[in-house]
Amino acid sequence: MAQKPSIPKGTRDFGPVETARRGYIFSTIRSVFELFGFAPIETPSIENLSTLMGKYGEEGDKLLFKILNSGEWARALESETVTADASARLTSKVSEKGLRYDLTVPFARFVVQHRNELTLPFKRYQIQPVWRADRPQKGRYREFYQCDADMVGSDSLINEVELLQMIDEVFARLGIRITIKLNNRKVLAGIAETIGEPDRLTDITVAIDKIDKIGLDNVRAELIERGLTDSAVERLVPFLTISGDTGERLAALRDALAGSETGLLGVAELQMVIDTVTNLGMRADVELDVSLARGLNYYTGTIIEVKARDVEIGSISGGGRYDNLTGVFGMPGLSGVGISFGADRIYDVLTALDLFPADVTPAPTVMFANFGEKEARAAMGMMKQLRAAGIPCEIYPDAAKMKKQMAYADSRHIPYVAIVGESEAAEGKLTLKDMTTGTQTLLTPAEAVNITK
Amino acid sequence: MAQKPSIPKGTRDFGPVETARRGYIFSTIRSVFELFGFAPIETPSIENLSTLMGKYGEEGDKLLFKILNSGEWARALESETVTADASARLTSKVSEKGLRYDLTVPFARFVVQHRNELTLPFKRYQIQPVWRADRPQKGRYREFYQCDADMVGSDSLINEVELLQMIDEVFARLGIRITIKLNNRKVLAGIAETIGEPDRLTDITVAIDKIDKIGLDNVRAELIERGLTDSAVERLVPFLTISGDTGERLAALRDALAGSETGLLGVAELQMVIDTVTNLGMRADVELDVSLARGLNYYTGTIIEVKARDVEIGSISGGGRYDNLTGVFGMPGLSGVGISFGADRIYDVLTALDLFPADVTPAPTVMFANFGEKEARAAMGMMKQLRAAGIPCEIYPDAAKMKKQMAYADSRHIPYVAIVGESEAAEGKLTLKDMTTGTQTLLTPAEAVNITK
Repeated sequence: MAQKPSIPKGTRDFGPVETARRGYIFSTIRSVFELFGFAPIETPSIENLSTLMGKYGEEGDKLLFKILNSGEWARALESETVTADASARLTSKVSEKGLRYDLTVPFARFVVQHRNELTLPFKRYQIQPVWRADRPQKGRYREFYQCDADMVGSDSLINEVELLQMIDEVFARLGIRITIKLNNRKVLAGIAETIGEPDRLTDITVAIDKIDKIGLDNVRAELIERGLTDSAVERLVPFLTISGDTGERLAALRDALAGSETGLLGVAELQMVIDTVTNLGMRADVELDVSLARGLNYYTGTIIEVKARDVEIGSISGGGRYDNLTGVFGMPGLSGVGISFGADRIYDVLTALDLFPADVTPAPTVMFANFGEKEARAAMGMMKQLRAAGIPCEIYPDAAKMKKQMAYADSRHIPYVAIVGESEAAEGKLTLKDMTTGTQTLLTPAEAVNITK
Repeated sequence: MAQKPSIPKGTRDFGPVETARRGYIFSTIRSVFELFGFAPIETPSIENLSTLMGKYGEEGDKLLFKILNSGEWARALESETVTADASARLTSKVSEKGLRYDLTVPFARFVVQHRNELTLPFKRYQIQPVWRADRPQKGRYREFYQCDADMVGSDSLINEVELLQMIDEVFARLGIRITIKLNNRKVLAGIAETIGEPDRLTDITVAIDKIDKIGLDNVRAELIERGLTDSAVERLVPFLTISGDTGERLAALRDALAGSETGLLGVAELQMVIDTVTNLGMRADVELDVSLARGLNYYTGTIIEVKARDVEIGSISGGGRYDNLTGVFGMPGLSGVGISFGADRIYDVLTALDLFPADVTPAPTVMFANFGEKEARAAMGMMKQLRAAGIPCEIYPDAAKMKKQMAYADSRHIPYVAIVGESEAAEGKLTLKDMTTGTQTLLTPAEAVNITK
């Protein structure tokens, strides 16, 4: 019996228009990555679970898609007591491999595995899908693309400057006005030190990360709940309410952090990065945001987040510096900095602002109508000439009613229909119909090339 | 303790050079698909097992990568007797989803699922990875890309003509000389009918498919073993030994199939397709090959296979017509025809023949050397001008010894190094070193653009 076909929850089919538009985003990002000297790599979709497990926290381990071992996988369970609550423990017995969860851990694994073939510093980009067994919800998918660029093997702030210019260029090309928010983990560490809670950095950053969402009072309450002293929390508040333009904020921060060497280093790094990109000229707004932590504990220096200025949506790009990404794979002390572009959110922003260019379309430029065997042969000859000149075209495969052929051209938004009837075929010409204006012109194939190019 | 990182058997990391070269293959194929009016779609990597199972034969079912259900997957086994030999039966209890095995079944599923949004005929292309739990061996991988173009909803032979021209164009662009072998399932059916074994078509085609590999005598023996009568086998031999050029072969075939309506229809289809592409002009050799069956039972008309002429390797592209691909999903009677390009084998052919263009490289055109903070700032300003003109470039991030910087540029095969020392910075110029010739020239950034463009 025929099945009613469907796809798993949280996954998506992309039709022609969506795929063409997604391709436009990927190729824009890819060309900017290459303009900045980043080289592409690809890693397998399937990694050993030993590579993936323990890298994304306990929750992340649960969200990994695990692949059932091939063959007689149940053999490994024969001597086990198989109960529902033993699932987590039994997983390692029936599954050795999992689907890529992000591009960062595979990149770290790649660098260490191929250390002898790579010249450092190594700049790579990677545009590939990742999979997470998240509960599907609006805007959150179980399969989605990440577009990452990272540089490892150099702690120079020039890398930060390059990444910020790259972000600027990507969004300028896409036509999206953005604000780049910057912070520095050393500043956050300096704050923790200054308020006398140097070991509570994680608690503080997690709380600070929420300030935009839950407001100052709730963050204050949460910090108390997390066990910070009242006085520490009071000493923290001024840091969260620093105001003015970026220059004023940096100055205020420098004063407030006067007692912390780490904190001052963070301020100096921010100052250098902001000054340099400002002098080079940015179309994006660049601002300091001390509340920015991105909840990711592996950042050790610069933290970057990008927001669209004209659409209410989460961050559309982000990243930062990490100093020990490859340590877990046995290669400590390699500094890196990277950014990631979120293709799905960028797609939503381009849609909301109607920014996809009209020529980003899955349709050919010309459809040759089909008037029967002999005319079709003549049409195919002309089509060959148009194609040789780079004009995408096709012929309607059947000599169907003209109304049906035109409806097909319409539904695909094909801009021109070429009519090669008996008289055109005899003359070696075609009648080109502009589907927008309705105008029809008798042309040689060479003339048609010039018009449709 | 640090792990020694590795990837699963049968999977691959692609470094910068390989990824750039693979990208060249994909983008060549993609542009030709688009030149011929095919529209891109993408389907999820993860499909429901109900969509995949039973579509690739018993062996295929085993080769599907299955994904372990999330959460307490072992609950479903609590009341089961879990033994090794029950693995196959128990799989459906712990796994509902699998990885895409090819692009054809997901495409059929897509067409049926989205039938109300699609205008027929529907021409789609799809370039995505597929996964098979095959025993890894040389040239066979567990994750590899397929590049498919299919047209459904039209039984016109114009589609075959288009596909053959498309194959011709792809390989002409890649510089690979090819032979396109053609056959038609109706011819094979006609042969089966003529030799008096109309129901043994599968046995015959499977055996015929082996003629190149094991020779006529072994095929003959195998057919006898499969239960064909001696007389049927004797009547078959002439079909396998038809010789001469394609015109002569077609004529001989027409004579030999005179008693089979189906067989004659197949010959007429082949004749029309071959005549039409020949008149339009093909760079590829096109030849009739009655031994061609491609072992795939779903082809119902034209069968296509492409061989590289200058490298001993299996087929590098292939396809054919199928009349009931969507039937299993509840949409019978939809005729389709398609081809698939094998990116891995094409990669091997291009490598063997040294055909990758020199500008298919993951390196930027210019590396700016780094002489310290002040010079680097000047260099970054000039780099911005080069990038604005589309020249991919980068700056070495640290003011390392010049020897180290040059070694980096060398190892990445970067063609030009731009030197911005104190004097160049003062003048707003750069010294451009051609890394091939060693020549150094003092230039303005605008002049550097003209040279490196």
